[in-house]
Amino acid sequence: MTLAFVVPGLDEASSEKAIAILQNRLSQEQEAALVLKHAHWNVTGPNFIAVHEMLDPEVESVLAQADETAERIATLGGTPDGRADAIVRHRTWKPFDVEGRQSTEKYLEALIEYYDAFIADDRKAIAELDELDLVSSNIMQDHVAALEKFQWFMRSHLA
Amino acid sequence: MTLAFVVPGLDEASSEKAIAILQNRLSQEQEAALVLKHAHWNVTGPNFIAVHEMLDPEVESVLAQADETAERIATLGGTPDGRADAIVRHRTWKPFDVEGRQSTEKYLEALIEYYDAFIADDRKAIAELDELDLVSSNIMQDHVAALEKFQWFMRSHLA
Amino acid sequence: MTLAFVVPGLDEASSEKAIAILQNRLSQEQEAALVLKHAHWNVTGPNFIAVHEMLDPEVESVLAQADETAERIATLGGTPDGRADAIVRHRTWKPFDVEGRQSTEKYLEALIEYYDAFIADDRKAIAELDELDLVSSNIMQDHVAALEKFQWFMRSHLA
Amino acid sequence: MTLAFVVPGLDEASSEKAIAILQNRLSQEQEAALVLKHAHWNVTGPNFIAVHEMLDPEVESVLAQADETAERIATLGGTPDGRADAIVRHRTWKPFDVEGRQSTEKYLEALIEYYDAFIADDRKAIAELDELDLVSSNIMQDHVAALEKFQWFMRSHLA
Amino acid sequence: MTLAFVVPGLDEASSEKAIAILQNRLSQEQEAALVLKHAHWNVTGPNFIAVHEMLDPEVESVLAQADETAERIATLGGTPDGRADAIVRHRTWKPFDVEGRQSTEKYLEALIEYYDAFIADDRKAIAELDELDLVSSNIMQDHVAALEKFQWFMRSHLA
Amino acid sequence: MTLAFVVPGLDEASSEKAIAILQNRLSQEQEAALVLKHAHWNVTGPNFIAVHEMLDPEVESVLAQADETAERIATLGGTPDGRADAIVRHRTWKPFDVEGRQSTEKYLEALIEYYDAFIADDRKAIAELDELDLVSSNIMQDHVAALEKFQWFMRSHLA
Amino acid sequence: MTLAFVVPGLDEASSEKAIAILQNRLSQEQEAALVLKHAHWNVTGPNFIAVHEMLDPEVESVLAQADETAERIATLGGTPDGRADAIVRHRTWKPFDVEGRQSTEKYLEALIEYYDAFIADDRKAIAELDELDLVSSNIMQDHVAALEKFQWFMRSHLA
Amino acid sequence: MTLAFVVPGLDEASSEKAIAILQNRLSQEQEAALVLKHAHWNVTGPNFIAVHEMLDPEVESVLAQADETAERIATLGGTPDGRADAIVRHRTWKPFDVEGRQSTEKYLEALIEYYDAFIADDRKAIAELDELDLVSSNIMQDHVAALEKFQWFMRSHLA
Amino acid sequence: MTLAFVVPGLDEASSEKAIAILQNRLSQEQEAALVLKHAHWNVTGPNFIAVHEMLDPEVESVLAQADETAERIATLGGTPDGRADAIVRHRTWKPFDVEGRQSTEKYLEALIEYYDAFIADDRKAIAELDELDLVSSNIMQDHVAALEKFQWFMRSHLA
Amino acid sequence: MTLAFVVPGLDEASSEKAIAILQNRLSQEQEAALVLKHAHWNVTGPNFIAVHEMLDPEVESVLAQADETAERIATLGGTPDGRADAIVRHRTWKPFDVEGRQSTEKYLEALIEYYDAFIADDRKAIAELDELDLVSSNIMQDHVAALEKFQWFMRSHLA
Amino acid sequence: MTLAFVVPGLDEASSEKAIAILQNRLSQEQEAALVLKHAHWNVTGPNFIAVHEMLDPEVESVLAQADETAERIATLGGTPDGRADAIVRHRTWKPFDVEGRQSTEKYLEALIEYYDAFIADDRKAIAELDELDLVSSNIMQDHVAALEKFQWFMRSHLA
Amino acid sequence: MTLAFVVPGLDEASSEKAIAILQNRLSQEQEAALVLKHAHWNVTGPNFIAVHEMLDPEVESVLAQADETAERIATLGGTPDGRADAIVRHRTWKPFDVEGRQSTEKYLEALIEYYDAFIADDRKAIAELDELDLVSSNIMQDHVAALEKFQWFMRSHLA
Repeated sequence: MTLAFVVPGLDEASSEKAIAILQNRLSQEQEAALVLKHAHWNVTGPNFIAVHEMLDPEVESVLAQADETAERIATLGGTPDGRADAIVRHRTWKPFDVEGRQSTEKYLEALIEYYDAFIADDRKAIAELDELDLVSSNIMQDHVAALEKFQWFMRSHLA
Repeated sequence: MTLAFVVPGLDEASSEKAIAILQNRLSQEQEAALVLKHAHWNVTGPNFIAVHEMLDPEVESVLAQADETAERIATLGGTPDGRADAIVRHRTWKPFDVEGRQSTEKYLEALIEYYDAFIADDRKAIAELDELDLVSSNIMQDHVAALEKFQWFMRSHLA
Repeated sequence: MTLAFVVPGLDEASSEKAIAILQNRLSQEQEAALVLKHAHWNVTGPNFIAVHEMLDPEVESVLAQADETAERIATLGGTPDGRADAIVRHRTWKPFDVEGRQSTEKYLEALIEYYDAFIADDRKAIAELDELDLVSSNIMQDHVAALEKFQWFMRSHLA
Repeated sequence: MTLAFVVPGLDEASSEKAIAILQNRLSQEQEAALVLKHAHWNVTGPNFIAVHEMLDPEVESVLAQADETAERIATLGGTPDGRADAIVRHRTWKPFDVEGRQSTEKYLEALIEYYDAFIADDRKAIAELDELDLVSSNIMQDHVAALEKFQWFMRSHLA
Repeated sequence: MTLAFVVPGLDEASSEKAIAILQNRLSQEQEAALVLKHAHWNVTGPNFIAVHEMLDPEVESVLAQADETAERIATLGGTPDGRADAIVRHRTWKPFDVEGRQSTEKYLEALIEYYDAFIADDRKAIAELDELDLVSSNIMQDHVAALEKFQWFMRSHLA
Repeated sequence: MTLAFVVPGLDEASSEKAIAILQNRLSQEQEAALVLKHAHWNVTGPNFIAVHEMLDPEVESVLAQADETAERIATLGGTPDGRADAIVRHRTWKPFDVEGRQSTEKYLEALIEYYDAFIADDRKAIAELDELDLVSSNIMQDHVAALEKFQWFMRSHLA
Repeated sequence: MTLAFVVPGLDEASSEKAIAILQNRLSQEQEAALVLKHAHWNVTGPNFIAVHEMLDPEVESVLAQADETAERIATLGGTPDGRADAIVRHRTWKPFDVEGRQSTEKYLEALIEYYDAFIADDRKAIAELDELDLVSSNIMQDHVAALEKFQWFMRSHLA
Repeated sequence: MTLAFVVPGLDEASSEKAIAILQNRLSQEQEAALVLKHAHWNVTGPNFIAVHEMLDPEVESVLAQADETAERIATLGGTPDGRADAIVRHRTWKPFDVEGRQSTEKYLEALIEYYDAFIADDRKAIAELDELDLVSSNIMQDHVAALEKFQWFMRSHLA
Repeated sequence: MTLAFVVPGLDEASSEKAIAILQNRLSQEQEAALVLKHAHWNVTGPNFIAVHEMLDPEVESVLAQADETAERIATLGGTPDGRADAIVRHRTWKPFDVEGRQSTEKYLEALIEYYDAFIADDRKAIAELDELDLVSSNIMQDHVAALEKFQWFMRSHLA
Repeated sequence: MTLAFVVPGLDEASSEKAIAILQNRLSQEQEAALVLKHAHWNVTGPNFIAVHEMLDPEVESVLAQADETAERIATLGGTPDGRADAIVRHRTWKPFDVEGRQSTEKYLEALIEYYDAFIADDRKAIAELDELDLVSSNIMQDHVAALEKFQWFMRSHLA
Repeated sequence: MTLAFVVPGLDEASSEKAIAILQNRLSQEQEAALVLKHAHWNVTGPNFIAVHEMLDPEVESVLAQADETAERIATLGGTPDGRADAIVRHRTWKPFDVEGRQSTEKYLEALIEYYDAFIADDRKAIAELDELDLVSSNIMQDHVAALEKFQWFMRSHLA
Repeated sequence: MTLAFVVPGLDEASSEKAIAILQNRLSQEQEAALVLKHAHWNVTGPNFIAVHEMLDPEVESVLAQADETAERIATLGGTPDGRADAIVRHRTWKPFDVEGRQSTEKYLEALIEYYDAFIADDRKAIAELDELDLVSSNIMQDHVAALEKFQWFMRSHLA
């Protein structure tokens, strides 16, 4: 990786490490938006409309997270890869494997499990970024707070 | 493919054919949103801000197209697949292969080429849907009109 | 029926036939708004609030369809009849016969059945209008697309 | 009529009487919305646009009255009937019998006459509800104030 | 109680009695806002999101009622007490005793019961205020109409 | 006074009496708007900006009251007189006699005194209208509630 | 007249003369708002709604003019008198003498005549203020432009 | 005519023919906006304000049509000519020859006649474009629907 | 030219002269809107999107200028001619002769030259109107300030 | 305390400790909203309106803090208690003991003192949460920043 | 000073003189924004919140004035200097020398004095610009009208 | 420096040190707003409009930063100095020395260099504030994140 420049006050090595972490998070944030839409279209059952509508603001939320993450990579002198193949290539977590018309419960269970890995990886990234770049860590802290709150929403449904 | 139901007035065979066509279009619409964001983050050069900002409304536009296409599939009794792997699997067109910091010109040239295939496939889908389901055809006609207009925008940049 | 005038480019016979078709559709669109409100007020059960709120935008939607249909009749030189008795008199479909406090499921089942006839008749009208007046046909095509999508919403609830 | 429940502080007999009065008013409020739209589409003459546009906010107003009346019936434990046949069945007033393209004057004269009965019946309902349920009476008082103001509007046109 | 002044046209004794009634209502309105938020945070089960979101507008509604009641007390020359201890001290009704994560049904049942007392006391206050101060009575009449409508919402859920 | 018409359900004698009462209130409401603006322009002292800005919404409020009162007169078949000379001619209360640059305290004291008569006369009008026309009485009840609240605002300043 | 202060760059004598001119204009602007509302409430005939609605924005416009004029007086160190008696006392023009229910034509004719004097006096004030205070003159120039445009509106009605 | 490019899926000959048709429509749409404004400024008589205000939204509508038509020409690789001389040069219809202050009736009669040719030419263009380019035809279909509705508005005035 | 009336305080001769000047300006303002749109559609090159979007607010601006100028002519008793042929007939300046797809530079150069004449003629009109009618002169002064600012925008592009 | 679940990456013991700290803060945030409203209603004196209005946005602010705190408790698997008795029971700080009509100074002094404890406890909570859960600590840091700013507002009043 | 160009109709010498005057005004307008913010942050005492909030719209106002002045300089072919050192260098008036926490009275007194010079210099600029460039003079006339009004606000506080 | 008070939980020495750091940052934030406006007015060249418009939101952003920094100083008991001379006096960084009409490239290069120092000093301040006051550090962390993102924007232009 060749950086175009570095942010004033950061060295090149730290920047590169931070960028690698952020790219991994970007790919999952982009995938999460696709997965949430996928569920939005396929859920069925007596809570259809409530769950269908609850998912859309979360899609907006993770799309905004991806935008913020990618622009932080560019700000650090890196080059984010936002294509579908990059999502597949960077995937270090279990893919989302529910498909077709299924009950809201089934989709929510699978999404809660997907968020377990999503949140755990975000928290790990925060720990690493704290040593490398305060600003990048702050960005991820805001992301994880939002994800955890949405996971509570989903858990409350299944309780 | 087993349909959950059919729209009043459509038979099952036509519905299935229409769904298959729409799923192919859905995957490219979803990919286009990723590709446009990818360009949004990586363009550079004296027209950076203008192109960076011109791309975002088009992202919104193709995301809305994908939503409309997927919900039409569901309306016809089908089950849209909106995951990243589905994009890769359904891809019958050339992937977008520009990456890293590049000039606005380079990205626009590649996007114009990508839109050539996108539009041609949409027009082919319209011709086929016209025989199967008028409403689905209407939806794709609106999509292609918007894509062609945005291609003119990009072409005018490179003139 | 005596027309006040004809649209430039349409003959009187076609106009009269188109008007008769549109009046029939107007009456059902007006009735659908009443029926949806009727359900809005009487549904009960654990999905009460979700279904109660899901119905109101659809009321707005079919009221707007009725307005568009009636103004097309007037535009063609005809005189729309929008009174309650006209709804009853023009009714060529099965009346909606659920009443009193009933579960959301019961109302949705009855509404899905009501929409089966509604959509089938709209599609038949489109086929006939296509030969008579392109603009009127376009208007009904937009109406049926919206109705089919809402029927999917209701079906997903009952799945 | 079997009530699902009663409001704390009201007895069953009063509730049933109030509900019967409100159902009668609901039917006329729903019919008024249809009648006003009917006029909206068919008026002609030099004041066409002014009268055409003056009627639409009144349609919104009586639709909102109907919604409030029906929800009060449900709040009292009753089951409002909002279908077209209920309008015809509950009609204790003279139907609106102007139709076709007519001058704004002719439609306004007929609407003023229709409002005479509408307002008189609302005032009678208020007198009866005052003994049964203060809240229901308050609701109808607001309705009649709005109707009387609109009748003044129409009368000023014809002066 | 020493009044700072009296409203033109009201005597001191009536003012004092009206103020005492309004203070009691203020305390319950403030408590209701706390109780509804408490439920908003702790409900669980398949209708979680629908009920969670249905409660928030009602919180806004009773907070606005409390504000109006307290400002009426001040307008009459009294001094509203809006602190937590005043709620406990003025409580003449059964406290809300559901706590912890519970199903939406359990919370709604308890809220319906809480509203039974709330509405009954509001109606009693109206009867007394009618003799003392017309304006204060009008204010409480609007409050009870809103509470009764929300109770219908909750009852429809449990039907 | 010759009425152009009467509201359905009201007799001519009651209408005429109600109109006379409402005309007297209209004149004071119109004058109050002028008096409040007069104060708005001439107050001075350390609370200038706070009082200057507090008065404008009250101007809007009494202008809206005057509009509502005058349109009620017209609705009852009367003819409101809204000219400056009518204000002077109908004045049965003490004119506002503070002028020139004066402290906020001096203007507020004079306005509180002006409102004493304003409110007392409104309450007297309500008592009389209650026997003549319920709707007119309701209108004045809303007006007096707003005036009393604003008087509390002013009194709290001078406390 | 004793001024509280003078604007930097203006002498006391010019300020006093400008204030006297502006006070005369203020009184007419305030009266115009009353007169236009008076017409708004009493016009009748086939153009009722159009004229009724055309007058309200002009009321807003002259009220804003009066506010601007009065605040300019205060800015110059003067003390505007905005009470009803000041309107009568400062009146150097013919009072508006149409009253009761009259046709839109009759009211518009009288208003056009009233505006003749209004505009002529404003233009005279501009000529005098030009010598005394440029800013005050600018304010009145904007006022007269708006009045002349509204007079054209009224004249076009009567053509 | 040399095209800069063609839309994917269209051949050059069809594109050129479609462009020629669209340029003719563009010129009339631009002229219609000028003609409607011309009427907006010169109408007089008792319906002045109603007609004056009814024309402005139609000006916005045809300006938006012209923009859409011109951008479609550019999208097809053509070069729209939007200057005043192009309007005159492309005019294949009868110019609008009413001028000066005239009654609303006179202007509306002339506009209805102007729209007869406008609509007839748009319908002819649709028939031709249907064979050349579906998207261009769709655009003109939406335009003609709007024009026909506005013609009904004008006809209703003169009825 | 026969005037329908004159503004109070203006004589007929001055009014006629002012109207002739304003008509000339109206024609150029209307043409400028057409010319700017023409450029909006045909510009190409690396600054396409920036220039394309920069032109639209200026189109709105000159259309609003034309509306204000034409309504001033009518206010003065004249009859504005707003048709395409009037633009050509009143043209005392060099027509805009760039056409087809051209670089943003070429269009901006031509527009700057067009604005040179536009501004110079507006300034000449102001000088003449100053002697005839202050209000008309003020209107044109605001117009020229806006045009000069936009010319600076264009010049900064070409620097 | 039995947790329903834990956030991915947090252990149960830390979660329980964090929840206990947050519940204490929730109770004070809820009480602060009640206390601020209490002051809002009872302040008097020459700064009445300014202080009355300054308090309302702070009420909104602490209500939003309470909502965020309670939802964080639920997100961590805990069960927030938001009832009035919980406020009294969890109170580890001095209650607010000013009541009745008092000067703005007296209320502000008491509120500043109340905020001293509020802020000190929030800062102590932050220190403890930093060791337990980064996200919870971030939430409280935002709360304390807002409280400190509002305390400055109040201090500046009393300076 | 070398001008990049001149506005059509202005000669170079006049342009240069106008630019020099405008640059002096720009510097004071920019400083005024800093000074008002400085006061906004440091005022204390019982009118803190009222004065604190009254200053912010005035900051917006003078920032907009500075923007308009600077863009007029550029429009005339000049080059505005907007840096802090330019403010100090161009300062021909007494600097603002109040600092630290001070009463609202002290800051308002100092601001009134600062505005004395500000307004006097603006009026002098207007007189000079009147001979050089009408448009620039118009711009400064609007600025001085706003400043004088705000000075009245401040004076009314101290009266 | 004498503090008026300290925030609960902070000692005086830490407060004083934090205030000194924040004052230095305030001065640069205020200067940055002036410098960005200076560039906004003087940039030229083919990217004029894009860069001109890109700068204004950043001006808003740094003005808001300055407001937040200054209010934090006041919250800590300090007295921010926001005057032009304070900017010059506190300047510990290289002044911005580009002036006159220059290409967008030249201004962007100079701004990137200015931001290098700006960001480096903000990061240094964060490190020091972390030891003194967590809340102040948080505020500066948000500022630096925004500055770094805008620097990326500018860098992308020059790539």
